[in-house]
Amino acid sequence: MNKPFNPADFETPKVTTGALPASRKVYVTPEAAPDLRVPLREIVLSSLSGEPPLPVYDTSGPYTDETATIDVEQGLPRTRLAWVRERGGVEEYEGRPVKPVDNGNVTGKHLARNFPNTPKPWRALDGKPVTQYEWARAGVITKEMIYVAERENLGRKQMLERAQAAIADGESFGASVPPFITPEFVREEIARGRAIIPSNINHAELEPMIIGRNFLVKINANIGNSAVTSSVEEEVEKMVWAIRWGADTVMDLSTGRNIHNTREWIIRNAPVPIGTVPIYQALEKVDGDPAKLDWEVYKDTLIEQCEQGVDYFTIHAGVRLAYVPLTANRVTGIVSRGGSIMAKWCLSRHKESFLYERFEEICDIMRKYDVSFSLGDGLRPGSIADANDRAQFAELETLGELTRIAWDKGCQVMIEGPGHVPMHKIKINMDKQLKECGEAPFYTLGPLTTDIAPGYDHITSGIGAAMIGWFGCAMLCYVTPKEHLGLPDRDDVKEGVITYKIAAHAADLAKGHPAAQLRDDALSRARFDFRWEDQFNLGLDPDTARAFHDETLPKEAHKVAHFCSMCGPKFCSMKITQDVRDYAASLGDNEKAALEGMAEMSAKFNELGGQVYVDAEKVKASNKAL
Amino acid sequence: MNKPFNPADFETPKVTTGALPASRKVYVTPEAAPDLRVPLREIVLSSLSGEPPLPVYDTSGPYTDETATIDVEQGLPRTRLAWVRERGGVEEYEGRPVKPVDNGNVTGKHLARNFPNTPKPWRALDGKPVTQYEWARAGVITKEMIYVAERENLGRKQMLERAQAAIADGESFGASVPPFITPEFVREEIARGRAIIPSNINHAELEPMIIGRNFLVKINANIGNSAVTSSVEEEVEKMVWAIRWGADTVMDLSTGRNIHNTREWIIRNAPVPIGTVPIYQALEKVDGDPAKLDWEVYKDTLIEQCEQGVDYFTIHAGVRLAYVPLTANRVTGIVSRGGSIMAKWCLSRHKESFLYERFEEICDIMRKYDVSFSLGDGLRPGSIADANDRAQFAELETLGELTRIAWDKGCQVMIEGPGHVPMHKIKINMDKQLKECGEAPFYTLGPLTTDIAPGYDHITSGIGAAMIGWFGCAMLCYVTPKEHLGLPDRDDVKEGVITYKIAAHAADLAKGHPAAQLRDDALSRARFDFRWEDQFNLGLDPDTARAFHDETLPKEAHKVAHFCSMCGPKFCSMKITQDVRDYAASLGDNEKAALEGMAEMSAKFNELGGQVYVDAEKVKASNKAL
Repeated sequence: MNKPFNPADFETPKVTTGALPASRKVYVTPEAAPDLRVPLREIVLSSLSGEPPLPVYDTSGPYTDETATIDVEQGLPRTRLAWVRERGGVEEYEGRPVKPVDNGNVTGKHLARNFPNTPKPWRALDGKPVTQYEWARAGVITKEMIYVAERENLGRKQMLERAQAAIADGESFGASVPPFITPEFVREEIARGRAIIPSNINHAELEPMIIGRNFLVKINANIGNSAVTSSVEEEVEKMVWAIRWGADTVMDLSTGRNIHNTREWIIRNAPVPIGTVPIYQALEKVDGDPAKLDWEVYKDTLIEQCEQGVDYFTIHAGVRLAYVPLTANRVTGIVSRGGSIMAKWCLSRHKESFLYERFEEICDIMRKYDVSFSLGDGLRPGSIADANDRAQFAELETLGELTRIAWDKGCQVMIEGPGHVPMHKIKINMDKQLKECGEAPFYTLGPLTTDIAPGYDHITSGIGAAMIGWFGCAMLCYVTPKEHLGLPDRDDVKEGVITYKIAAHAADLAKGHPAAQLRDDALSRARFDFRWEDQFNLGLDPDTARAFHDETLPKEAHKVAHFCSMCGPKFCSMKITQDVRDYAASLGDNEKAALEGMAEMSAKFNELGGQVYVDAEKVKASNKAL
Repeated sequence: MNKPFNPADFETPKVTTGALPASRKVYVTPEAAPDLRVPLREIVLSSLSGEPPLPVYDTSGPYTDETATIDVEQGLPRTRLAWVRERGGVEEYEGRPVKPVDNGNVTGKHLARNFPNTPKPWRALDGKPVTQYEWARAGVITKEMIYVAERENLGRKQMLERAQAAIADGESFGASVPPFITPEFVREEIARGRAIIPSNINHAELEPMIIGRNFLVKINANIGNSAVTSSVEEEVEKMVWAIRWGADTVMDLSTGRNIHNTREWIIRNAPVPIGTVPIYQALEKVDGDPAKLDWEVYKDTLIEQCEQGVDYFTIHAGVRLAYVPLTANRVTGIVSRGGSIMAKWCLSRHKESFLYERFEEICDIMRKYDVSFSLGDGLRPGSIADANDRAQFAELETLGELTRIAWDKGCQVMIEGPGHVPMHKIKINMDKQLKECGEAPFYTLGPLTTDIAPGYDHITSGIGAAMIGWFGCAMLCYVTPKEHLGLPDRDDVKEGVITYKIAAHAADLAKGHPAAQLRDDALSRARFDFRWEDQFNLGLDPDTARAFHDETLPKEAHKVAHFCSMCGPKFCSMKITQDVRDYAASLGDNEKAALEGMAEMSAKFNELGGQVYVDAEKVKASNKAL
């Protein structure tokens, strides 16, 4: 059980540091911006392999850099502030003072200590461009764009050098994944609204990343305390832990007390974008009664969080009064917390949602800090029975309308999606989202493909997440094994993150990402060669792979032995395969031809076009036949 | 770590018995055969629910029947022997004596005790029909067919009674899943070769089940000791444990010593079909040297296992000499154990496979006992890089040729499939299998959709399994978290089974199975009503769901409280939804119309056709657009 929150215990959060096994942090400098240092992780392979280190995308920040000094009380270096300042059009100012209500009016020993090193906020000067969207529309390539181009090109460079990019087949359903990502391509995608770089100018600790259909599929991990359980320290470590295993962004979904202070510790120590749902805190400020919410308290909360550096806000502005009754006959009603708060507000006042009515004002606030919209799906289905119903799709259409307003106002936008959806209804969601929302990035929770497995909803949803990622979803919000049952602990966070890394990578492979298969191939070669250490280290979770192996064959000697516990020493298929290779190598052309003749296979071979790989066109044709 | 096998410790295997939480075993008598008792499990819901018990398909046999007496030394009742005898055309005979080589020539304290109650075998008289396929072709409906029709209709009856079968939408890609399963429909599907009932006449302990695209998607769990680890007792309990959680069939993949005796204990206590790979034992009989294998030792092994009651054999007769060199340039060569043994045999003798050349003789042996073929994919890809290559598809074409021979000989047939396949190449496998093999049931291992997550291959493969199940695969062979790393223990078996139950059920939902959603809906209603006990009990794994819940909210009171640990007492979306319902109920028609007018939604609603559910035709149209 998690320890209930007790502020008296509050100490400096202890976070997990150190490199992953056989890994080292490397920084690359893009040609276009020599002052940038773009991180990646190199997995060093055993000398037996004869292979160079494999570079992989790295979300973990300085925590896995053996040379970095980590001081959670100081926070991470605020490198990006210089980039923002050199673009100009911004001012530093005395921010909104922190009020007792920001932390739920707790006092004395119940109040979590605030972060000791809070910076002053920055904002755009009136009429000056500040968001990545505005710069992109103005034709300006920002350092953030150069940074993410470099990050996304990992592996692609290698493939281009080998001139092998062409072998990647795949079916991307209309996406335009290029062989190589230039900063100009990034700019174009952002200008078209097809991608976002969530990057509040006040989150200067950020290592920028991009979310969009033509980039690597990303994943989000949710953390956050609640009124019932968990502490500030736990949440900071959960953030560090989540990015260690590959979370691209982290949402702080805290409710209850000490929300402001918890968030400050998280942001100051986060190299990834942090998202929140501001209505959660706004509701805390009015003692949890949705009917008491109003624009003033919400606006105050937005500004508070903009100044702290939150990178994207979930805003449920599509939950309109008229849609609320559409949910009345659902099996599971409204399951989104934000959605149900707004529904209750609309009903209790019998008025249109203030988020919808004030949407342009919300845009004006968020633009000043370049906080991205994550337009919330407050009416998402909470069960298979409710998937793709009228309430859900009516809201999605409104999110499309709001997307266009936000773009007009200069803001970056992504769209949240479901939820619980059976497999045959997933693609409809993706197609409708692209159509209604002008290709703004889609960001879905799963979807869960069945309701019958509480305790395993990382898996029920991992299936749907892989599929919708393939179909074009840009970011997948993880679901942990505790979904529907309790708050995730550290193990659950890791299980959720790894499951979603699998889904995102499976999607990248299927879309035809030109370099995604490099890691699969490296791991498969290690497997075939019985390089156990390399096999562990190339995997998403080296620690678990090693532990599982050692349960049956713990001896060090077995890690280089040419057999494994499944088949034993004399019964090994991979060993036999080596004999096959030796045999094939020994055959002359005449012998090969004779073999083929003997088997009367020529017709069959011709039918297959004589190719080792089925070509991409055939794959697409077959998929189209679905 | 598993305890290494030590025969000196051998005792009567201890197996897990007792009902699942809130569950009771019920037996149904089909109208067409009043002497049959078809088992199902009823999940009893709390009195708060006002709902009747939910019946679910039950693979667990008498072990979960609180009224049954379990005696592992006696084995399960041999009820089905009477069905076989009353059809006639069979004889009891003195079987092949057990030889020391059958157990790897172990003696004394190393020899596991044989099952104390081994029955004499039965076989078909010359020229008499005995297989389900032969009876089906002859127009005869067997008791096995009546039994499985009753089993498969679970839930369908309920839906028909409610006249709700029509609401199930879905996309079945050309399958013909009927609203109701009659014994005659079962007979027709078997006669067409589209379904099998694996049911060796010597496995009289069997509760028959059916495998075919127009029935519920099934799952298989692999167990088996190896030369390195695990004991007879462990394997019997693994079988009982696997079926407790839902395995529809179990494959005993034992190698090493005591194979014969281990298998005898398993079969005599198994209510589900047992599959094996006979070449594993044949290889043990020739000291593990593939070059020493010959037809006589293989034939002897087939007869040995036919007499014991194995229900289906994996036979890698499609690994032809000419295909072997096609694997030479693969990243992971030949990864199937059976495939690599046969490849080695072909190479060492430079001869065509004796399994291929003797295939008709193999059919004649298997037919006499009604052992079904599971034509093995010995050349399946072992990595993403090798998916859908020429070697794989050449073998699949040969399996199609062999399928037709086996049918001509009166045998039941299914076809094994891969393996490691990225998402965009999965459907090609299904389509090609249906075409090449005349719609014989497909039985795939996963497929794994990426290679980069050792330790999580139940998940990498669960994604592919759900998809190929949707596309038409009839049975999904589970993969456990230990895949590629070690032998699964009890926890791994459960994790693998639950993951595959999820995949199979997600596939049933997406195919439009008319009653699959009943369980999702019941669980979702329980979730919405905060009936925590019902939510746990309706899930695939009540124990884990309960344990996860109790980690955060252990008090009994919380199991009826209208909130949960995620949101806390005052912040509950489901509570708010109840207010929405009350509000909607309070609205008059005029008020509703006014609301809709205010939101200017009429155009949007018309576009959606005014339906709560997107209709099936639109779903299909959208899927076809892929």
